[in-house]
Amino acid sequence: MALTPPPHTTREEEQQHNNNNGCHMNLAISPNCTGETQANLSAVINHYVHTLNHFNLRNLGYPTNQNFNYDALAPLLQFHLNNAGDPFVGSSFRLNSTSFEVSALDWFANLWDIQKNKYWGYVTTGGTEANLHAILVGREQFPDGVLYTSEDSHYSIFKIARIYRMQCVKVRSLISGEIDCADLKASLLHHKDRPAIINLNIGTTMKGAVDDIDLVIKTLEESGFNRDRFYIHCDAALFGIMLPFLKAASKIISFKKPIGSVSVSGHKFLGCPIPCGVVITRSEYINASSRDVEIIGSRDATITGSRCGHAPIFLWYAIKKKGSIGIQNEVENCIANARYLHNRLSDAGIGAMLNEYSNIVVFERPLDHQFSRRWNLACQGNIAHVVVMQHVTIQMLDSFVNEFLHKRSFSRFEDYGSFQPLCIAEKVGAANCSCSMHNLYHDCAC
Amino acid sequence: MALTPPPHTTREEEQQHNNNNGCHMNLAISPNCTGETQANLSAVINHYVHTLNHFNLRNLGYPTNQNFNYDALAPLLQFHLNNAGDPFVGSSFRLNSTSFEVSALDWFANLWDIQKNKYWGYVTTGGTEANLHAILVGREQFPDGVLYTSEDSHYSIFKIARIYRMQCVKVRSLISGEIDCADLKASLLHHKDRPAIINLNIGTTMKGAVDDIDLVIKTLEESGFNRDRFYIHCDAALFGIMLPFLKAASKIISFKKPIGSVSVSGHKFLGCPIPCGVVITRSEYINASSRDVEIIGSRDATITGSRCGHAPIFLWYAIKKKGSIGIQNEVENCIANARYLHNRLSDAGIGAMLNEYSNIVVFERPLDHQFSRRWNLACQGNIAHVVVMQHVTIQMLDSFVNEFLHKRSFSRFEDYGSFQPLCIAEKVGAANCSCSMHNLYHDCAC
Repeated sequence: MALTPPPHTTREEEQQHNNNNGCHMNLAISPNCTGETQANLSAVINHYVHTLNHFNLRNLGYPTNQNFNYDALAPLLQFHLNNAGDPFVGSSFRLNSTSFEVSALDWFANLWDIQKNKYWGYVTTGGTEANLHAILVGREQFPDGVLYTSEDSHYSIFKIARIYRMQCVKVRSLISGEIDCADLKASLLHHKDRPAIINLNIGTTMKGAVDDIDLVIKTLEESGFNRDRFYIHCDAALFGIMLPFLKAASKIISFKKPIGSVSVSGHKFLGCPIPCGVVITRSEYINASSRDVEIIGSRDATITGSRCGHAPIFLWYAIKKKGSIGIQNEVENCIANARYLHNRLSDAGIGAMLNEYSNIVVFERPLDHQFSRRWNLACQGNIAHVVVMQHVTIQMLDSFVNEFLHKRSFSRFEDYGSFQPLCIAEKVGAANCSCSMHNLYHDCAC
Repeated sequence: MALTPPPHTTREEEQQHNNNNGCHMNLAISPNCTGETQANLSAVINHYVHTLNHFNLRNLGYPTNQNFNYDALAPLLQFHLNNAGDPFVGSSFRLNSTSFEVSALDWFANLWDIQKNKYWGYVTTGGTEANLHAILVGREQFPDGVLYTSEDSHYSIFKIARIYRMQCVKVRSLISGEIDCADLKASLLHHKDRPAIINLNIGTTMKGAVDDIDLVIKTLEESGFNRDRFYIHCDAALFGIMLPFLKAASKIISFKKPIGSVSVSGHKFLGCPIPCGVVITRSEYINASSRDVEIIGSRDATITGSRCGHAPIFLWYAIKKKGSIGIQNEVENCIANARYLHNRLSDAGIGAMLNEYSNIVVFERPLDHQFSRRWNLACQGNIAHVVVMQHVTIQMLDSFVNEFLHKRSFSRFEDYGSFQPLCIAEKVGAANCSCSMHNLYHDCAC
């Protein structure tokens, strides 16, 4: 019997799996319906909450902190809150939360070393809107600029280039996932007559690699790009909050360097029921490009118009509740647990990689599709990853590894004893690969 | 003493007014703080809720239905829900609500006359993202198309044209606020060698005017634009839900006409704590332009990446709870109350206008800035408007009109008896203006 191949379900099968959320309810709305009773509606919601609780127990693959409690904010569900416009100008729609928003933004600005009167920013609907804003700021600075980003960048960056009608150069990555500055240099020299807009990953979605900002700046200078001919955006979706709390990495993200903007997701490390993000840029860029809008009594400098008023309160509340000490403890704990998982996988002979400063453990993709789904893993090609967030305990990791090993041993029997770990050297490097060839190589090297 | 001019506060004064939300709390977050106590956090939130309740009583100027109750959904605040990707494909992030989303989308598709297997759409973060998506779909169809939109369009449309690097022609509007098809024709003929992407307002933000879709299509045909050379997007932010429930207007928005997309805000008529929207387009456009994204186990066809999982549940819940009959009653009630307000203002000699099918009453801008702020009015030049939503009662309208008249009579005294109503004929037409000149004209006409 052949080795079970990675499953190739049809789109219809995938849709059925993904879309029902384990919630086998008839949610259809009849066109000419009378209003549903409160009892029936509550029954649907209760059933849904039950299925969510089930998934929450094994949510390993995505960088969303599920460990939060916003019960005290439930009364705010009574209001439509809307921060349309510029948070620093406020808006004539009085049911806003811009005072919370500005307090949260001030905290992020301080975290990334930029003074209050030097920065501008806002709470976005997520990382993509933050990137949309930041790259637009870059394009406004350099209308004919070329966008450079590594092949490990989030898919939104390539989409944004297409949307914005910008030429985008995909730069090679190193095995770690970091941008390859040798390839960047070659690309820069190829387009040296046009300014450079550079998207850097702090860190990458799949491998948690942190692009080397200082080396990129050096590369730009060596390639003849002075500071008035480049714009750097740092997409720090997950690590934007984590790195400043790691002693060895605390100075990586800093506006004292010639960078133009930093973005972070709000729902990732801090945890938030709804997706949100933060973008911080230099105020000089915004003053030149925004427009006053009388009907909202504000200034239009954001991508979206109506903006969620709840998200800034969630962020403000999370930061206030945890405090700096609390956040630091959470960061250290996530990194320590990620190292624990990495060690357990490596000790068990499963190819795995963990970058410095990262809580994302990359490893060979489980062959059992149901197992991946059960643990909500994110997969790409022949690798998968676990993002060790605050809700991921040592007990969860132990259960995960034990079950993984059990499933793997089962595959071996299916294959009459000839089971071979996948070769993932191309993705994680030979030193991190456990396939028979590279394993032998490790032994020799020892 | 001269007539009090419309107030011109400085940006700093405006910021102070707008940003504090009447919430005089110190919300600053110290960089090296320990975690705040639950008691202190709850005190801040309770105080904020108190100020919100105060504003909620006089919220007349914006199209946000404040009359909702989602208490039954409070347990969902425990979860981060994320619909990243295509709602019809689902996602490998299991904590999603795509099953609710698809049910809500099906309802909208049916409302606007397009079959399930013929449409594609998603729940956006608001009207602007819906417009961003729709106009991108138009641009994907016609990369060199010219965007046409009336001068009364929402400010997002002009921003989108700039972001998308599209040539945008601002077409004149009629006094009602509708697009002027004579000017549209002249513009089309001026660019007849390039396809047309047309944004129509159903209705406009300030005056609630409904662009005449049929007349626009006729104008396109008369100008030599066949159906394969134009794309029409209908920005139906507020009226997208209302018109289908008005007998005389129920067929205005229909995919049986050659339109490409329709968008609506979710938080406007239905009411929702957080901003959201819906965009519906023809599936044939999407299948050609979307991309599979393995890491989320879905297809990327949306503007944002991570997408709010709560918003689709709010929409689903609101529609289910009200039912068609409930929505129809609410629509009729809003329109009837808008007519009541229009009559009361006109009877009192205040220049005012109310378009057909509209719940937006436009009138001369109150001279007292504090009065406008107190009632949360939206103002533009020398006009203001009230949007008669579900939370706006006859009692509120009576209080508003009485206070308006009182303030106005006070202005008269200040001006030694020579008070003159503002002339707003240019904005609302001579027939709706109450200034001394046009009032005299009305008398003559009678």
